[in-house]
Amino acid sequence: MSDRNGIRLGELVERLGGQLIGDDNLIVNGIAPLEQAEATNITFLSNSKLRQQARKTLAAAIIIHEADVGFLQPEFKGGLILVENPYVYFAKTAQFFAQSELQKQPTLAPGIHPSACVDPSAQIAATAVIGPLVCIESHVVIEDNVRIDGGCFIGRGARIGAHSHFYANVSWHHDCRIGRHAIVYSGAVIGNEGFGFANDAGRWIKIPQRGGVIIGDDVEIGANTCIDRGTLTDTIIEDGVKLDNQIQIGHNCYIGAHTAMAGCVGVAGSAKIGRHCTFGGAAMVLGHLNIADNVHISAGSLVSRSISEPGQYTGFFPLAKNADWEKSAAIVRNLDSLRDRVRALEKMIELPTSTRQESSEN
Amino acid sequence: MSDRNGIRLGELVERLGGQLIGDDNLIVNGIAPLEQAEATNITFLSNSKLRQQARKTLAAAIIIHEADVGFLQPEFKGGLILVENPYVYFAKTAQFFAQSELQKQPTLAPGIHPSACVDPSAQIAATAVIGPLVCIESHVVIEDNVRIDGGCFIGRGARIGAHSHFYANVSWHHDCRIGRHAIVYSGAVIGNEGFGFANDAGRWIKIPQRGGVIIGDDVEIGANTCIDRGTLTDTIIEDGVKLDNQIQIGHNCYIGAHTAMAGCVGVAGSAKIGRHCTFGGAAMVLGHLNIADNVHISAGSLVSRSISEPGQYTGFFPLAKNADWEKSAAIVRNLDSLRDRVRALEKMIELPTSTRQESSEN
Amino acid sequence: MSDRNGIRLGELVERLGGQLIGDDNLIVNGIAPLEQAEATNITFLSNSKLRQQARKTLAAAIIIHEADVGFLQPEFKGGLILVENPYVYFAKTAQFFAQSELQKQPTLAPGIHPSACVDPSAQIAATAVIGPLVCIESHVVIEDNVRIDGGCFIGRGARIGAHSHFYANVSWHHDCRIGRHAIVYSGAVIGNEGFGFANDAGRWIKIPQRGGVIIGDDVEIGANTCIDRGTLTDTIIEDGVKLDNQIQIGHNCYIGAHTAMAGCVGVAGSAKIGRHCTFGGAAMVLGHLNIADNVHISAGSLVSRSISEPGQYTGFFPLAKNADWEKSAAIVRNLDSLRDRVRALEKMIELPTSTRQESSEN
Repeated sequence: MSDRNGIRLGELVERLGGQLIGDDNLIVNGIAPLEQAEATNITFLSNSKLRQQARKTLAAAIIIHEADVGFLQPEFKGGLILVENPYVYFAKTAQFFAQSELQKQPTLAPGIHPSACVDPSAQIAATAVIGPLVCIESHVVIEDNVRIDGGCFIGRGARIGAHSHFYANVSWHHDCRIGRHAIVYSGAVIGNEGFGFANDAGRWIKIPQRGGVIIGDDVEIGANTCIDRGTLTDTIIEDGVKLDNQIQIGHNCYIGAHTAMAGCVGVAGSAKIGRHCTFGGAAMVLGHLNIADNVHISAGSLVSRSISEPGQYTGFFPLAKNADWEKSAAIVRNLDSLRDRVRALEKMIELPTSTRQESSEN
Repeated sequence: MSDRNGIRLGELVERLGGQLIGDDNLIVNGIAPLEQAEATNITFLSNSKLRQQARKTLAAAIIIHEADVGFLQPEFKGGLILVENPYVYFAKTAQFFAQSELQKQPTLAPGIHPSACVDPSAQIAATAVIGPLVCIESHVVIEDNVRIDGGCFIGRGARIGAHSHFYANVSWHHDCRIGRHAIVYSGAVIGNEGFGFANDAGRWIKIPQRGGVIIGDDVEIGANTCIDRGTLTDTIIEDGVKLDNQIQIGHNCYIGAHTAMAGCVGVAGSAKIGRHCTFGGAAMVLGHLNIADNVHISAGSLVSRSISEPGQYTGFFPLAKNADWEKSAAIVRNLDSLRDRVRALEKMIELPTSTRQESSEN
Repeated sequence: MSDRNGIRLGELVERLGGQLIGDDNLIVNGIAPLEQAEATNITFLSNSKLRQQARKTLAAAIIIHEADVGFLQPEFKGGLILVENPYVYFAKTAQFFAQSELQKQPTLAPGIHPSACVDPSAQIAATAVIGPLVCIESHVVIEDNVRIDGGCFIGRGARIGAHSHFYANVSWHHDCRIGRHAIVYSGAVIGNEGFGFANDAGRWIKIPQRGGVIIGDDVEIGANTCIDRGTLTDTIIEDGVKLDNQIQIGHNCYIGAHTAMAGCVGVAGSAKIGRHCTFGGAAMVLGHLNIADNVHISAGSLVSRSISEPGQYTGFFPLAKNADWEKSAAIVRNLDSLRDRVRALEKMIELPTSTRQESSEN
C-alpha cells in the first residue's frame, strides 16, 4: 500500500488531470481505501454512500466528485482532487503507483529460458521473455515484448501480439491468434475443440472442429477460462473484451468489443453477443442467440432467448430463509392451479369484460 | 474451410451413403455453413427454418432431408444428397475432410520427447507419442497409438487405452484408467481427491479418498473438467460419455453410457446417472440422487430429487427486463400471502365444493 | 478396500475411542460401505435410513450410534462400536487405514528433482519434496515436509507452510502465502489478478491488483479453483476453510475459519463471509456482501444481499417436467397481472378491511 518513492500532488494532477484543491507540494506514496489509508496515501470516494468514511480518512488527499465536496468540508483538512469520474481516476492513479513499484523490481531479461522447448521454426522476437518449461510448437509467432511465463503451452501456428503477457500454465492451441497488450491468466485454455456431436441412434458422432480462435487487442482472459475454437469458421473475440475467471465460451461465438463478463459465466456455442455488454457472475447464455449491444445481464441469470433491446435483464429465484422458500417453491410448482382458482372466482362474480380480457392473456 | 484436394460427389456418396441427385462428377473440397459456402464446397440443411438461406447458398451441393427438397427447387441448381439425418451426415462429411486435411500435416514421430520425465517402470507402447515436458510416474501403462501432449502429468499406476489423445497440461492422477479412443482436453483434472469431510464439533475431519476413476471407451473430457476419485469404491464413467468444458463430477458418481453434458455442469458426489441422458449448460445435480436413462435436463436447472421417469425437465427463473423481474420476484417472495388472499375470496363467495377441493392441494 | 495388514477391533477402539460390543480380537483390514463390505472389513451406519442394509451387511463390525443398535439385533452377529458420531468415527477409521496403506508405498525421497527449475534465492527445506518439471521463482520459502508435485509453478516471494501438499500443475502466484498442513489440488490458480476495471466512456481501464492472498492452516483448495489476489489489501482465507473444485473467489474476499464450499461456487469481489458457513454446489455470492457466521446456503442459490442471521437460505426455481415448468414460468412472468386480478376481485366483493390491509403489503 505504500511506496518508498512518492509523488507531489501537483505532479500527479499534471500527469492525470483533475483540479487540485490544497497544497500541491504534499507528497503521496501510494493509494489505499478510505479506511486503510495512511497519512502519506491518497484515497478516493467513488460512491456517495461512503461519504461518512471519507470525512474521517487519514489520507493526505481524496479523489472526489464535485458533488461530494461540500459534505466533507470543513471536517476533512487534506487535499482534494476534483474529477468527473473518481473511480476511473483511481484506476489511473493505481496504475501510476503500480508502474513505479514495478520499476523497482529486477527486470526479466529477454530471451528463452534454457529449460523451454521451442521448435526451431517458431519466430520469437528478440525482446520477448520465454519462461522456464514453456513448450512452443512449430511456426508460432511471438511478437515484441511478449512475456510467456513458466509452463505455458503454445500450439503450432499460433500468433501472440506485441506486449501481451501469458501467466504460468496457459494452454494455447494451434493456429489461434491474439492481438497486442493482451493478458491471459493461468490455466486458461484457448482453442480446444468445442462440444460438437451429432446423435446417430443414441451414439454421438464427433464433428471435427476446424476453425480457430481470433482475439483482438487489449483483451484480458481470466484464470481457468476456456474459449473453444470454431467448427467450420472462427470463434471471434473483439478488442477490449474482458473475461474473468472460470468462464466458458463455446465454439463459433462472437463477442463484441468492450464487453465484460464476470466469473463463472457460460456462453453456449454460436451465440453472438454485442458490444459494451456486461454479464454478472454465473450468467448463462444459450446457444445460437443474438444479444444486442449495451445489454446487461444480472448475475445468476439464464438467457434463453435473443435480446434485441438494450437494458438490464434479470432472472434468478430470490433468496429466502429455507422454510419460506419451501412455501414459495411449492406454490410456484402449482401456479397454474392458483391461476385457475382466480379464473373460477372471476367467473363466479362475473367480473366486467374489460378486466377479464386482460386476464385472458395469462 | 477449403481443401486443395477435393472429392467427387459420387465418391463421397459411395463412402458415406445417401442418394445423390445431380452431377456425380462435381468436385467438392470442403464443407461450410449455408451462408459461407463457396462454389467448391458442400453444405447442409439440418433445420427447416433455414430453408430460405439454403435456396440462396453458393455451395455445389446440399446435404438435405427429402422433406425439404421441394422447397429448394427449382431455385437451387446444385447437387442434392438425400439422407435420413442431415446433421449426422454433415458430421461424417466433416470427419472425412478433417482426416484428409490431417494427412497433409507432418505426422508426429512415435517416441518420448527428450524433455519428458518418464519413470523407468512405466510401459509406453512403441507407437505412442509422449510430448515435451510430460511427467509420467511409476507403473503407468500407455497403450498403442496414444498421444500425450506437452506438459501433461500422469500419476503412478494409471492406464491409458489405445488411440487416446491427451491435450496439453492434463493432470491425470494415480491408478485412474481410461479406455480406447478417448480424448481428454487441456486442464482436465482426473482422479483428484473429492470433497469428503465429517464435521466434528465445527472442524472438518478429512475422509481419505482411496477409490479410483474408471472410464470406458470413446469418452471425451472437456477442458478444465474435473472428475474426482471415489472414496471407498470407484467413480465410474461408461463408454461413449461426452463431457464438455468446466464440468465437475464428484466422488463415487456413476455416469451411464452415451450420456452427454454441456459446459459448466456440476454433479455432486454419489449421484448415479443413467444412459443416454443429456444435461444443458450449468445444470446441477445434487448428491446421492438417481437419474433414470433418457432423462434430459435443461440448461441452468438444479436437480434436487431423483428422477425415475424419462423426459425433459426444467427449472430456471425466466429472464425478464430487470424492472419486470423485480415485480415478479417481490410477489414470488410472498406467494403464500397471495394464495391466502385467494383462499379468503373463495371462502367469501362460497365456491362450490368440487373447485375448493382441487384448490386444497395447493 | 482391503488391506493386507489388519488391526484388532480392540486396538482400533483403544486408538480412536468408542465402546466395543463383541469380540475385541476380531481382525479387520479395511473399511467399506454397508453393501460392499466383506467379512474382514469394518463398516459404518451414519444414517438411520440405511438400517435395513446394516442388518444384512457382511462386515465384521459396524460403527454405530446407540439409537440404532436395537434395530440390528439379533440379526447382525458381528461387533458393534458405539460412538456419538458414526460419520466422524468413520472418517478417523478411514484415515487410519489410509495411513497404514501409505506406509507400504515407497516413500518419496526429499530433495529437488533434477528437471525442476528452482531459483537459487529460494529457501527449500531439506525435508521437502520438489517434483519433476516444477518451477520455483526467486525468494520463495518452502517449509519442512512440503511436497510439490510435477509441473507446479510457485511465483517469487511465495511461502508454503510445513506439511503442505501441492498436487500436479498448481499455479501459485507471487507473494501469496499458505499455512501448515494445507492441500492444494491440480489446476488451482492462487493469486492471479482479479477482475478490476473502471469504465471510462465505454473502455475498461485496468485497476492493478497489488494485494496478495493470505491463507491459514489446514486449508484445502480443490482442483481448478481460483482465488484472486487483493486490489490494495489482501484476500484472506482463515484456518480450516475447505474449498471444493471449480470455485471462484474474487479479489479482497474474506472467508472465515472452518467455512466449507462445494464445487462450482462463486464468490464475487470484496464479499466477507463468516465462520462455520457452508455453501452448496454452484451457490453464488454477489460482491461487497457480508455473510454472518453459521449461515448455510443451499446449492444453486444466488445470494444477492447481506445476511446477518444464521440459518439455512435457499433460492432456486424448483425442477419440473418441462411442460409443467413452461406453464409455471409463463405465469411467473406475469405474476403482477395475477395479483392485480386478485385485487380486482377483492374490491368487487369488498373484503373486510383487515384482510385487505394485509394484502396491500404485496
